[in-house]
Amino acid sequence: MEPVFEFPIVFDDRLQAGRMRQLHEQLRAAILDQRLRQGTSLPSTRDVAASCRVARNTVIAAYDLLIAEGYALPRKGARAVVADIATRRVSKPRRLTAAHGDARMNPAWGAASLQPQPPRDLPERSFRLGIPEHRHFPHAAWRRLSAQSLRAWSKTPFSYAPSEGLPLLREAIAQHVAFARAVACRSDDVIVTSGAQQAFDLLARLLVVPRRTRVAIEDPGYMPLRSAFAAAGARLVPVPVDDEGMCVDRLPKDVRVISVTPSHQSPTGVALSSRRRLQLLEFARNHGAVIIEDDYDGEFRFGGRPLDALQTLDGDALVFYVGTFSKSLFPGLRKGFVVAPPWARAALVGVKHCADSHSDTITQSVLAAFIREGHLARHVRRMRPIYAARREALLDGLRRELGDWLEPIASEAGLHLAVRVREPQLFARILGQAQRFTPGVQSTDEYSSKPLAVPALVFGYGVIDVEAIVPALMRLRRALTR
Amino acid sequence: MEPVFEFPIVFDDRLQAGRMRQLHEQLRAAILDQRLRQGTSLPSTRDVAASCRVARNTVIAAYDLLIAEGYALPRKGARAVVADIATRRVSKPRRLTAAHGDARMNPAWGAASLQPQPPRDLPERSFRLGIPEHRHFPHAAWRRLSAQSLRAWSKTPFSYAPSEGLPLLREAIAQHVAFARAVACRSDDVIVTSGAQQAFDLLARLLVVPRRTRVAIEDPGYMPLRSAFAAAGARLVPVPVDDEGMCVDRLPKDVRVISVTPSHQSPTGVALSSRRRLQLLEFARNHGAVIIEDDYDGEFRFGGRPLDALQTLDGDALVFYVGTFSKSLFPGLRKGFVVAPPWARAALVGVKHCADSHSDTITQSVLAAFIREGHLARHVRRMRPIYAARREALLDGLRRELGDWLEPIASEAGLHLAVRVREPQLFARILGQAQRFTPGVQSTDEYSSKPLAVPALVFGYGVIDVEAIVPALMRLRRALTR
Repeated sequence: MEPVFEFPIVFDDRLQAGRMRQLHEQLRAAILDQRLRQGTSLPSTRDVAASCRVARNTVIAAYDLLIAEGYALPRKGARAVVADIATRRVSKPRRLTAAHGDARMNPAWGAASLQPQPPRDLPERSFRLGIPEHRHFPHAAWRRLSAQSLRAWSKTPFSYAPSEGLPLLREAIAQHVAFARAVACRSDDVIVTSGAQQAFDLLARLLVVPRRTRVAIEDPGYMPLRSAFAAAGARLVPVPVDDEGMCVDRLPKDVRVISVTPSHQSPTGVALSSRRRLQLLEFARNHGAVIIEDDYDGEFRFGGRPLDALQTLDGDALVFYVGTFSKSLFPGLRKGFVVAPPWARAALVGVKHCADSHSDTITQSVLAAFIREGHLARHVRRMRPIYAARREALLDGLRRELGDWLEPIASEAGLHLAVRVREPQLFARILGQAQRFTPGVQSTDEYSSKPLAVPALVFGYGVIDVEAIVPALMRLRRALTR
Repeated sequence: MEPVFEFPIVFDDRLQAGRMRQLHEQLRAAILDQRLRQGTSLPSTRDVAASCRVARNTVIAAYDLLIAEGYALPRKGARAVVADIATRRVSKPRRLTAAHGDARMNPAWGAASLQPQPPRDLPERSFRLGIPEHRHFPHAAWRRLSAQSLRAWSKTPFSYAPSEGLPLLREAIAQHVAFARAVACRSDDVIVTSGAQQAFDLLARLLVVPRRTRVAIEDPGYMPLRSAFAAAGARLVPVPVDDEGMCVDRLPKDVRVISVTPSHQSPTGVALSSRRRLQLLEFARNHGAVIIEDDYDGEFRFGGRPLDALQTLDGDALVFYVGTFSKSLFPGLRKGFVVAPPWARAALVGVKHCADSHSDTITQSVLAAFIREGHLARHVRRMRPIYAARREALLDGLRRELGDWLEPIASEAGLHLAVRVREPQLFARILGQAQRFTPGVQSTDEYSSKPLAVPALVFGYGVIDVEAIVPALMRLRRALTR
């Protein structure tokens, strides 16, 4: 006797529920997820009884229960049919469209800028920004350490972990930043977050009094950070950026939080000059402001010695140093951290606790082992010359092929390079061609809420092969000379 | 020649930085993380040159750089000493103490209730609440699927994932809740979160207009949810709970969000009666309110058939159904989800995007495979009789040993059981003895911001062996009869 449903009916005698309940539940589930569609008539109780090897009364009882619950409709002298469960759970379509207008939601979330951008349709290898190379990642080491952590963890009882992060990971991060970035900290200063974005979100919620606190952001600057502060109710103050980085002398006296990317400005790539660093710290000191130092891709340096991090220069516990493993390892890891000044640490841990209790334990312990065993340092060391070669190819190609139109903005770090257009009136045309022949290229306008006076193009080299760079630039030149 | 420092000096010729810079950086790092302490005099340049096999001028240059940067102090005719770097980065101690009072922080985070509780010092096996059994978890299957996911993922380029979660996981969750909880949803309705706590936090931020929105919470109720709403600026309305669950007729007309635990009230364990469920949905419909249905441990049922979830009964897209894998699998996983009504979905994804971009990709894909291969359903099925036996032992023991003092509150699900004290004036004494002889037991007072009129004791049975239950209760009886 072949099955009467398109899905198997399985009975498990270990279950407390008897066969009638089990049959009922499986049919109800099938109706709910529409494996049994509205209007289908249920097979005869006799057939079901035969194919499932249960008493016919069992099937009748299960059907009765479905009918009693409104999942099925009886029909005089005919077999019961699956009811229209949609009527049991309408989702008013107008609401779908009026989502953000819905009075039941905090209007703060209405802003389109807070919506994730639909993923751009780009080839796997392109000039796109913000994504590191996956080809040279030590996957085998990561797999080995995962298996190791999982085995160790299978022997320890389940529980919740500290909100600030696993001690081993905080220790590993403290040593990593002390060495790699000369950021002076102990593991107590480190709070593990789910990527830099959560760090920005937690800091925004901690530091912003809605509709009161003025927050200075770089313009152009990293938009998701801006979103986190906007969502927290900050009054945003865009501050222009020049070849020395954020124009510190343009900071209004009443800003209380200053967010900056000193090692490699996002997106222009310039470094905040020593002069400006000291000026910025002095401003914060004198006006009771705090600084958020976003060091998102500073591990990759191609020039001389790095300038000291603001956190290193800071003598007054004014700086929150934010780091991430999204560029040095991979974004899907969702691991970042804040090196927080002592006065703010307890409260920041409170925000993290409220936000998601803590970050997932297993990934934390794998990452801790990965850093402790030196894989992070080794991977960064391995990648630096690879990115350096791509950067060189990009600079050479830009000079040789496009020197008449484009002029790179000096930069010594990171995974992307910004270039100015010599004749601003040509910007739109060049951008259009660039997006066609060097896919992934962006305009710095995308990093500002309003069009910039002098926009620039940004080329990423995280996921493009060195051999592919010059040919792409040549195609762009040909298109421009046509 | 033996080493001159207590730590190795390692040169890597693949680095761009020359030996001088490498030596300088390693010494600076050692000073910053205090492997070289303030006041230590640096070994002579001659010794360092010999032991590190570099030219003496290299060492002199490195020392000069340290001195120039203020990490070391020159001494006339003597060797340079490590400077007091503390003076370079003071953290004003008064700030440490005055943390929450600090004017630079949003006072909302001052509330002590928002701070994580220090972990309670309990034996591994105890009557503690909220932690599931780890001994029967299918660790081998989890390890196998992790290795599998990591291998698959090593072949795909890195990128950021959708904020709402991986499609495969949302699909798996939709089928799981449709079957296990008769919650009607498609994968589009599911938003993956970092545990139920993040679900509460995202919903609080989405639904609350600070200082305006009134939010009804169960009293007693789950405190971390309360914290999330308090932090979002909600005006909290505690609503009493009786043997039918939340007293719906006590809801003020102007509440706009109602948070409830219908399957197994946290912490009393009662189920919200059918009558109240319909009453609650009607209230929400009539007053334009929404409902948050927190189904934290409803997978574990020991009685007759479950009542339909509010989400299942809801015909008007009023219910946000929140689920978690912290009880059915393990808390460190930090994975939960929201089944959201269509009108709120886009905005809720926006909040998630702003909060942390998305949850970590690898854990998501392992969990998806784990559910898809039926391990979750199997594990829940395996654990149900184990928890049921503990619950039976607890009920029998309470009746036989402590029936004169204690009276269980009827409950058919979950991992804990609440009991009333027959003579309220004895509550304090009995609680004191219980915490001593049945460690992990809590008072429902801990689930309320003010002392309850009739508090109860709560016994968890997630991490206690069936054999240990009755002996513990006997010891408690002896203590009480003494």
